[in-house]
Amino acid sequence: MSISTSASRPATDIPFSRESLEQVLKRRFFFAPAFDIYGGVSGLYDYGPPGCAFQANVVDTWRKHFVLEEDMLEVDCTMLTPHDVLKTSGHVDKFADWMCKDLKTGEIFRADHLVEEVLEARLKGDRAARGIEEKVEEEDEDKKKRKKKVKEVKNIKLADEVVAEYENVLAQIDGYSGEQLGQLILKYEINNPATGGKLEPPVEFNLMFETAIGPSGAIRGFLRPETAQGQFLNFAKLLEFNNEKMPFASASIGKSFRNEIAPRAGLLRVREFLMAEIEHFVDPNDKSHPKFKDVQDIKLRFLPKDVQESGSTQVVEKSVGEAVSSGMVDNQTLGYFLARVYQFLIKVGVDTDRLRFRQHMGNEMAHYASDCWDAELQTSYGWIECVGCADRSAYDLSVHAARTNASLVVRQPLPEPITVENYEVDIDKKKFGPKFKKDGGAIQKWLGSRSQCELEDYSKELADKGKIEINVKGVENTVELTSEYLKIAKVKRTEHIREFTPNVIEPSFGIGRILYSIFEHQYWARPGDADRGVLSLPPLVAPTKVLLVPLSNSADLQPIVTKVSAYLRKQQIPFKVDDSSASIGKRYARNDELGTPFGITIDFDSIKDESVTLRERDSTKQVRGSFEDVVAAIKEITYTGTTWAEGTSKLTPFESQSTDA
Amino acid sequence: MSISTSASRPATDIPFSRESLEQVLKRRFFFAPAFDIYGGVSGLYDYGPPGCAFQANVVDTWRKHFVLEEDMLEVDCTMLTPHDVLKTSGHVDKFADWMCKDLKTGEIFRADHLVEEVLEARLKGDRAARGIEEKVEEEDEDKKKRKKKVKEVKNIKLADEVVAEYENVLAQIDGYSGEQLGQLILKYEINNPATGGKLEPPVEFNLMFETAIGPSGAIRGFLRPETAQGQFLNFAKLLEFNNEKMPFASASIGKSFRNEIAPRAGLLRVREFLMAEIEHFVDPNDKSHPKFKDVQDIKLRFLPKDVQESGSTQVVEKSVGEAVSSGMVDNQTLGYFLARVYQFLIKVGVDTDRLRFRQHMGNEMAHYASDCWDAELQTSYGWIECVGCADRSAYDLSVHAARTNASLVVRQPLPEPITVENYEVDIDKKKFGPKFKKDGGAIQKWLGSRSQCELEDYSKELADKGKIEINVKGVENTVELTSEYLKIAKVKRTEHIREFTPNVIEPSFGIGRILYSIFEHQYWARPGDADRGVLSLPPLVAPTKVLLVPLSNSADLQPIVTKVSAYLRKQQIPFKVDDSSASIGKRYARNDELGTPFGITIDFDSIKDESVTLRERDSTKQVRGSFEDVVAAIKEITYTGTTWAEGTSKLTPFESQSTDA
Repeated sequence: MSISTSASRPATDIPFSRESLEQVLKRRFFFAPAFDIYGGVSGLYDYGPPGCAFQANVVDTWRKHFVLEEDMLEVDCTMLTPHDVLKTSGHVDKFADWMCKDLKTGEIFRADHLVEEVLEARLKGDRAARGIEEKVEEEDEDKKKRKKKVKEVKNIKLADEVVAEYENVLAQIDGYSGEQLGQLILKYEINNPATGGKLEPPVEFNLMFETAIGPSGAIRGFLRPETAQGQFLNFAKLLEFNNEKMPFASASIGKSFRNEIAPRAGLLRVREFLMAEIEHFVDPNDKSHPKFKDVQDIKLRFLPKDVQESGSTQVVEKSVGEAVSSGMVDNQTLGYFLARVYQFLIKVGVDTDRLRFRQHMGNEMAHYASDCWDAELQTSYGWIECVGCADRSAYDLSVHAARTNASLVVRQPLPEPITVENYEVDIDKKKFGPKFKKDGGAIQKWLGSRSQCELEDYSKELADKGKIEINVKGVENTVELTSEYLKIAKVKRTEHIREFTPNVIEPSFGIGRILYSIFEHQYWARPGDADRGVLSLPPLVAPTKVLLVPLSNSADLQPIVTKVSAYLRKQQIPFKVDDSSASIGKRYARNDELGTPFGITIDFDSIKDESVTLRERDSTKQVRGSFEDVVAAIKEITYTGTTWAEGTSKLTPFESQSTDA
Repeated sequence: MSISTSASRPATDIPFSRESLEQVLKRRFFFAPAFDIYGGVSGLYDYGPPGCAFQANVVDTWRKHFVLEEDMLEVDCTMLTPHDVLKTSGHVDKFADWMCKDLKTGEIFRADHLVEEVLEARLKGDRAARGIEEKVEEEDEDKKKRKKKVKEVKNIKLADEVVAEYENVLAQIDGYSGEQLGQLILKYEINNPATGGKLEPPVEFNLMFETAIGPSGAIRGFLRPETAQGQFLNFAKLLEFNNEKMPFASASIGKSFRNEIAPRAGLLRVREFLMAEIEHFVDPNDKSHPKFKDVQDIKLRFLPKDVQESGSTQVVEKSVGEAVSSGMVDNQTLGYFLARVYQFLIKVGVDTDRLRFRQHMGNEMAHYASDCWDAELQTSYGWIECVGCADRSAYDLSVHAARTNASLVVRQPLPEPITVENYEVDIDKKKFGPKFKKDGGAIQKWLGSRSQCELEDYSKELADKGKIEINVKGVENTVELTSEYLKIAKVKRTEHIREFTPNVIEPSFGIGRILYSIFEHQYWARPGDADRGVLSLPPLVAPTKVLLVPLSNSADLQPIVTKVSAYLRKQQIPFKVDDSSASIGKRYARNDELGTPFGITIDFDSIKDESVTLRERDSTKQVRGSFEDVVAAIKEITYTGTTWAEGTSKLTPFESQSTDA
């Protein structure tokens, strides 16, 4: 493949520094805290021009890679969602975190994070008391800051068994219930770390933002926590739009919301975020994928559940084909999407050495899911879940169908009719109606909802005793039914149609987390100069593709600058002109931080023959040619994934001017 | 210009029918009520695959037409917005409608709509009683439905002066205050139209959705009513990003929210909607535009305020250049954007004969705005505001700066230094400090905030009496200041910097309203056949560009279908294959409703020489050529605005097969 990957990034002797990256992102307005001049609101960020363009390009790539190439049905559903929908989906009851309140100060803590921080701080104090040198945790500035707040850190030695106990608790911290967290807080005497004050026992806090729809406040609503529900609710319309053909996928790109108790870690945990979600609807009896052979040889780094359960994080590298055939990945469709996710992440700039697919362990997975793998990206905050790929089974469609009586099923003609034999209830309506009057409906409904097993028993009872006695909800007395009123017997029928609820395989992308991880993967500093940062974003997704730099402010250069600008605009290549008085080197340095992959220098020779110099950001290599040829090379490298060497093979190497001085 | 406009749409003898259009939009899943299977929530709609793709293409065109071509700074700000920001902007106090409640039934009415409906119903009854024939209001199904609800419609003749009074009230219905509406309701004895029950007097209802941010509920927040505020708050960062250069524009595309009291009229009045907004920051002393000459000859249809105030709706057609030079449009920048809005609307499929620019009248315009023009599109619901172009003056930046003390100004070096002469206060700090001690700060602050006029008076008083007496907030007694402690005199200074708050010119687009208007402008039925609807969306924004149709299901055709599919995919042209068993005519009819502009038919000749037939949707003309040439023609017509005649000039006219039978 000719996709440019992080592997092409030049080597450097300057170690990665998150602080330096953050300064660049702030200075160049990739993003900033929202409502900054009002003091900001934690967990809310605005994207400035380069961040917004980078995001738009990643989304555009996503749309082409998935929606266009896979012929998916994209929908755009509302964020405002009525209570009933999210009650059915389970979010009203289960989309929650546990929080503890300090009644005195009003401060609120997320219970699991609190236990984690306090125990970690105590272990650190213990190590200090024992004289054990700390590993430098340079990569996690954020955690450091939080730990500084934990006042009770004193260098106190703990008993060996206490250390072991703490470590055991920390290893399982993601799995505790609210009650268990409450017990831990009591047992280890965990208080408000800043004041030492007592805390209330953990209570559940639902993470959805609530609002009222309409003037009477009668419609209770929420901001959606995911785009998936809108896709499920439109299933019947989508199936019809797809001419009833299965399998098919819908897709949606849009904002979702999560009212975090205490947001932290910058773009990685925010209250409003862009998601891109796919719901692939598939026959539960056949999860093969027609294009699986196209991806089966792609090798991925897997971290399966059994490895994690044995306490290891050693990845297993194998092809998607092997992963599916060995049963490690549940089915072809899931495997196909893991490979397609991998291809997408490479395209937009993820370093494949810092990408792994981690399987959910039994206790992590939603009860209805049959398999789930997260694409995790390694950052200075640790391994971050950026794409979740779950097999959600038939759960969502089933619960919405049960709640609304809508038909969310697929009906397919059987290749050959089949004969089925079932117990059926045959009521003699002429006698039944007059006898049971107003209770008739309830009794019939009750009979209609009996299982085959129950009907078999009743059939026998009716044959043996000539009557059955039943208790029906809503009917006051026990009902006695004799053979006079009904028969229960096995009946043979021929069926031509198979009806089933599809299973759903859902790759779900957190766009903001992916963007931030790419920043970390692609940021480096030129050898020997920590202040010359470069953001090596792939040309395809870079915010601006070209910086147009006139060598000087001379009015003589203006006509050719105008001509090249007009040409770039006509070719629809995003570019910027920098005709400031800063040195060429400074102008390029600014654009290295902005991730601009190409520079076109216009000098006095350009006036004569319309030739210009083309500079590549990462290598600072330069070539020269007519501006049309240079723009053609830029277009080819940016949009078709051609390498620099191939794309510029017809241009002349240029070394007479050192513009990067 | 070679942009394809509605003018190219063939003539038809079938009159436009909104009902027929609505059926097509529903059947082809352009959009549907959100949460349909849960009974829906009024004012919320989901876009299905063709609607979503159409929307994405219009947004993409907008981004290229404005952001890329005009070098705007696009930002993406959060929808969740804290109370303080919207209090400052005025939305907490003024973003409201008036509603009346029926305490008995709990029903809520929008006061102005209620008065309108009841008076119109009474006038209708009067006309019936007088035997005046009704004009058929076929175009407004919506209004009809609502009128059916008004039970009190009886054929009662009204006094002539009452008729005149009602008509006068209806003409001014958009201008009444809540109190005035309340008086009208009392005066004309307007009750709940369905039950005749008494209504409470109108109360204000704020149209923002409210929510609480964070677990303690301490941060009161709203969903934004417009994207503009996020852009204003980031002004200082954007100016810095733009290297302090003025003028410049920011832009933003995203959802905004409005909790309508009683949404109606489909996509035209919804509770969650996509907006695209531009904030162009400009020097208040110089609102010229460098590219104005590019657009000055474009002719637009204007409806200026004086024409409206004279009771007419006759448009004035003139060039943008004339409109600005005559002072009808306030300034070049505003005029430039009106022309650019016009060009954009043509590109995406608006019928220019049904587009006008209406100026706001004095009583409509926000108090701070200096001029405002709406691009209105004519639909069966009447003339609809789709783009607002307002000069918001310095209002927004000023109020946010005053509230936060942030510096939202531009500082520019003056071309030549200027000398200014001002009264200044000169305090003798050595004596002042010990004398006034803790009150010193307050007194100094008070002196520092005096106007030039006041300082001139104090200066005289100090010269005459040798002292001044002042009352300072926070200082208990009257303060006596003698010449010993301060001097007040005129001082000359040379200034090199000019500081000013920019004015903002804001073109604001309601994307959903534009999409719906285009549906109405481009929907027609083939002559003689009301059931053969066609949606003539311009190729640039059509959801799918090509329908690929194999002539039959024969396996022999499969290889060439696969080859052409792969080629279209590589060229990134959105297409669909329809290999269903329906007739070719039926398959094309389906895609005429979907607005698919091109069809490629693959037949048995295609196997021999790889030639295919290309069909154009509107004219049903056909040409033939190699599939590469056909795809090249499609690409050129779709993305560069070439006409069908030019784009297919190298292909052979094809008339042997009538596929539209």
